[in-house]
Amino acid sequence: MKRNLLALAIATLGTQAAAGTVTIDGADIVIKTKGGFEVKTSDGEYSFKLGGRVQLDYNSYDGVTNAKTGVISAADAGNTGSDLFFRRSRLSIKGHAGDWKYGLSYNLDKSGDDSIDSLKVGYTGFGKQLNITAGKQKEDFGLEDTGGSKWITAIERSMPSNAFDTGNNIGIKIHGASDLITYSLGSYKIDTDSNRDLETSVTGRFVIRPIYSKDAVLHLGAGFTQRDSDTAFDDFDTRVGVRGGDDGDATKLSPQFTSGDGDEMTVYNLEAAYSTGPVHLMAEYFDGEIEAPDTVAGSDDLNVDGYYFQAGWIVTGESRSYKKSSGSFDKVKPSGKNGAWEVFARYDSMDAESGTNIGLVGGEGAETATVGVNWYASSNVKVALNYVKAETDKKIQGEDDGDALVGRLQYTF
Amino acid sequence: MKRNLLALAIATLGTQAAAGTVTIDGADIVIKTKGGFEVKTSDGEYSFKLGGRVQLDYNSYDGVTNAKTGVISAADAGNTGSDLFFRRSRLSIKGHAGDWKYGLSYNLDKSGDDSIDSLKVGYTGFGKQLNITAGKQKEDFGLEDTGGSKWITAIERSMPSNAFDTGNNIGIKIHGASDLITYSLGSYKIDTDSNRDLETSVTGRFVIRPIYSKDAVLHLGAGFTQRDSDTAFDDFDTRVGVRGGDDGDATKLSPQFTSGDGDEMTVYNLEAAYSTGPVHLMAEYFDGEIEAPDTVAGSDDLNVDGYYFQAGWIVTGESRSYKKSSGSFDKVKPSGKNGAWEVFARYDSMDAESGTNIGLVGGEGAETATVGVNWYASSNVKVALNYVKAETDKKIQGEDDGDALVGRLQYTF
Amino acid sequence: MKRNLLALAIATLGTQAAAGTVTIDGADIVIKTKGGFEVKTSDGEYSFKLGGRVQLDYNSYDGVTNAKTGVISAADAGNTGSDLFFRRSRLSIKGHAGDWKYGLSYNLDKSGDDSIDSLKVGYTGFGKQLNITAGKQKEDFGLEDTGGSKWITAIERSMPSNAFDTGNNIGIKIHGASDLITYSLGSYKIDTDSNRDLETSVTGRFVIRPIYSKDAVLHLGAGFTQRDSDTAFDDFDTRVGVRGGDDGDATKLSPQFTSGDGDEMTVYNLEAAYSTGPVHLMAEYFDGEIEAPDTVAGSDDLNVDGYYFQAGWIVTGESRSYKKSSGSFDKVKPSGKNGAWEVFARYDSMDAESGTNIGLVGGEGAETATVGVNWYASSNVKVALNYVKAETDKKIQGEDDGDALVGRLQYTF
Repeated sequence: MKRNLLALAIATLGTQAAAGTVTIDGADIVIKTKGGFEVKTSDGEYSFKLGGRVQLDYNSYDGVTNAKTGVISAADAGNTGSDLFFRRSRLSIKGHAGDWKYGLSYNLDKSGDDSIDSLKVGYTGFGKQLNITAGKQKEDFGLEDTGGSKWITAIERSMPSNAFDTGNNIGIKIHGASDLITYSLGSYKIDTDSNRDLETSVTGRFVIRPIYSKDAVLHLGAGFTQRDSDTAFDDFDTRVGVRGGDDGDATKLSPQFTSGDGDEMTVYNLEAAYSTGPVHLMAEYFDGEIEAPDTVAGSDDLNVDGYYFQAGWIVTGESRSYKKSSGSFDKVKPSGKNGAWEVFARYDSMDAESGTNIGLVGGEGAETATVGVNWYASSNVKVALNYVKAETDKKIQGEDDGDALVGRLQYTF
Repeated sequence: MKRNLLALAIATLGTQAAAGTVTIDGADIVIKTKGGFEVKTSDGEYSFKLGGRVQLDYNSYDGVTNAKTGVISAADAGNTGSDLFFRRSRLSIKGHAGDWKYGLSYNLDKSGDDSIDSLKVGYTGFGKQLNITAGKQKEDFGLEDTGGSKWITAIERSMPSNAFDTGNNIGIKIHGASDLITYSLGSYKIDTDSNRDLETSVTGRFVIRPIYSKDAVLHLGAGFTQRDSDTAFDDFDTRVGVRGGDDGDATKLSPQFTSGDGDEMTVYNLEAAYSTGPVHLMAEYFDGEIEAPDTVAGSDDLNVDGYYFQAGWIVTGESRSYKKSSGSFDKVKPSGKNGAWEVFARYDSMDAESGTNIGLVGGEGAETATVGVNWYASSNVKVALNYVKAETDKKIQGEDDGDALVGRLQYTF
Repeated sequence: MKRNLLALAIATLGTQAAAGTVTIDGADIVIKTKGGFEVKTSDGEYSFKLGGRVQLDYNSYDGVTNAKTGVISAADAGNTGSDLFFRRSRLSIKGHAGDWKYGLSYNLDKSGDDSIDSLKVGYTGFGKQLNITAGKQKEDFGLEDTGGSKWITAIERSMPSNAFDTGNNIGIKIHGASDLITYSLGSYKIDTDSNRDLETSVTGRFVIRPIYSKDAVLHLGAGFTQRDSDTAFDDFDTRVGVRGGDDGDATKLSPQFTSGDGDEMTVYNLEAAYSTGPVHLMAEYFDGEIEAPDTVAGSDDLNVDGYYFQAGWIVTGESRSYKKSSGSFDKVKPSGKNGAWEVFARYDSMDAESGTNIGLVGGEGAETATVGVNWYASSNVKVALNYVKAETDKKIQGEDDGDALVGRLQYTF
């Protein structure tokens, strides 16, 4: 036995000597590549990871989805539009040193956009149930929006998730999770006012998991965001089921004030999801209000609500993973050589109330139905095809329904 | 014997223990740095590589090369212009996971430019003779344009390579290579039309190598590109032999339609090269046509052709390498401590036909002669000095000849 | 003894075999992470390092600091402005191959800014006393400006360091250092003129260290910069003690020509510093002149000077490090688990001479006093809080004093 081990030792060293030796300067180190690159010290004190995502999308869309006034003329409205474009192309770097960590997600974009998707510094010294994170980050509002764009089921998020998305903003958040709950509460910069004084939001989310085991997750959550600004918002708008090419100019449902800017936005949401084996169900409801402009006498408040239902089934038997730290669904990892196949369906609905000083641009409401298939070719590659059917209650340039075919090739590393 | 090996084992381990140990999480790993960074798993399943290039250029140019109307006034025309600027500054990341690979080349540029030079995902599961690559990539047209800007012989590509360059575009390409042939065929996005419908190109290239050995390569090739767009092209333009500083505003030969945009562009090319030992010869011919605008009665088509000859000799005896996967020349690796020295000469010519609705801006033709010397100081550093003599058949702001001195310091990692 | 070592050898190899082996392709390699990533070959021939910095700042500022005409209206002037923003967010990559090295520092910024902070290639083959560096780099002018923004004592540099900062420009510099001296001399691109001919600066700096030991450093230095341009400069401006939010629009002292652009700028400076144990003292004086515009008869030259004094004490006993290669102060490394604490105070003053064709926008002079505390929580994290009191000799929109509270969370890796 000892002799064999000794022989092994000699053999292994022989190989190493031939190829050169690797040492480190500091603590012991662990290295990994799965297409990206990761290094950490064995004692857990330091880590560094570089990765990225590419989403190459094809959109073909007609009828009401390609009828946006000001982008498509009446003569062209409703005809088929098509485009091939990068929906997202990002590099990410993250790491930690002791109790402090950082994370960067950077958009490799055309000029004209702010290129920092997120950039944050966190203190983790109080344990997993109390993290403090400062910098540009998600406000954590809604199940679909809190999850990453890499692992949403459909190619685009639902109409209400899009309409009520708080985006990524600079602020400070406390957040934490146990097996039972996930919570976050933060305050974020929206803008500065005419005095150059900060305008801020307060956003919170609470999730409880009555069931949380290897076999099943039952997720129930609620959230709110309250946003104060003189000029930052006067509408709730959302694209009707398709992005509409590189410029993102698909027709929008955009209820808005006819004149003036709203003073305060408040949105509530409810979320529910159940996942067991290869099947998941999820639904969210959002209810938003923007207070009437001070400056417009008799103006009503702007009220919009929306919801969606989604069901998915991974035909090849894998399960969609769930991250309790953020209370959201995550990646699907294929178990076999031929990848994992998933089919899903989603129904979205948005509705706005009419009133004095309210302009229902795009109409009072819209509905979309989406069906799709995802092929997780490997842990790095996802190929998706979605079909979207959209209807608006009002004709836009003569169109009130349309459909879209959307394809995606995604590589993550 | 065994004792000695054992002693070696103990000694080696002693060193490692003192410096810390490196392990990995997953498959065995190979690490490398030559100024950049590379890691791959020993089983070939995963890899990751980060590199980059910097080209710091000096331009001094006078006469016709510094007489571009609208940039230089008649009073200043022909005087010496000069600039010191980054010609290219790029980071690149590439990697693979199983049969899927990705590559990113990112311009570290001023605002106003699209910063993604290339970003692509490829499937390699069918072997080297059939690759499928999707994303922003080279259309593969022409010998000089298909080769990378790091390893072209002169500082700037030839006039016709510049005039007929298809650029990098988002599309899908099939391509492959054996010792005998290299081919590529793809379709790419040019723009979207007024309906927001995709406008595309089809571009193909075929290369055959009657001679392909360690001692010599004989390369013969042909290519075509056909490009459909309502508004994307109305001229063939090319700078007369020098970039002209950071803004790239050297005088151009720019035959164009006097009114209207062309409807379809078609370009053919022929390429030939021979490389043996330290010597290489290469030549290309391009013939391009843009169809007359529909909207302009009696307009002629726009016809332009051009060619170049080049010969280079590496005085220190090294050979320019050749990549069969892309069918193009590649790096020169110095064999000695003092680097490799290369001298070369190139002659370029461009000609346009006159006709109804054709404006010969910059004249009917231009010719340039370039001589230069390259010092490959190491595998990472290239220092180049080029002298360019340019002539146009028509006077531009009173000038019809000029010369330029161009220097480059290039670092690649 | 031998037996024990043998047992150790076997045990260690056992662990390695279980976790996988790491080899390298080329020379022996050393790997390191302290939150970022570093790899080098043991023979010193190659290296690669990736790091970054994030500075998340909070500004609250009132009185004269928030009264800038054209940004704040008379009605709002002097009220409290506040903002939360990224002051700097940069990634850096550097490496070397043999005698050639490169360095990149890249701003992860909003669009509209040139994103390359620095990008340079250096030749180190002549030893530490004679380096040649080409590319975009610091001109090396002034003690505070030559040091990096990561490790300046206060959150913002002093008023004169800001007013006379040469910035980072594309050029060529020779520089070197011994224990006794540090020097640099370079020529840099400012702009191109109407002929498109280069306009350049010449900037030099010389530092001598009469005392240079582990216990103490005495640093004395002088520098100059001479800058030729037709249009690049017509003022010396500096913010009065605070940045003023993301847009950097705090009120400025901005002596300038009433009409025309200056022809040549010349600035001299003197610098002195003494550091011993936890205490450091430093001071700089700058004297700048812009020649009167040719085109304005009877115009006086524009003359501005300024100075600052600073004293700091690291309460927990650590010393501020000093880099002789650049002749500047560097990082504070906490020795204990609870980090290092530093207190400091600085006094800044700026003065301009009045004259014909001189507009003293913001008045003839300004003074600021800054006190602050720095907590170096770890080698990677710095938390800083500064209080600034500013006074101008002239009322700006009715204000001639004001104060600011500035906070920073900095993460470097």
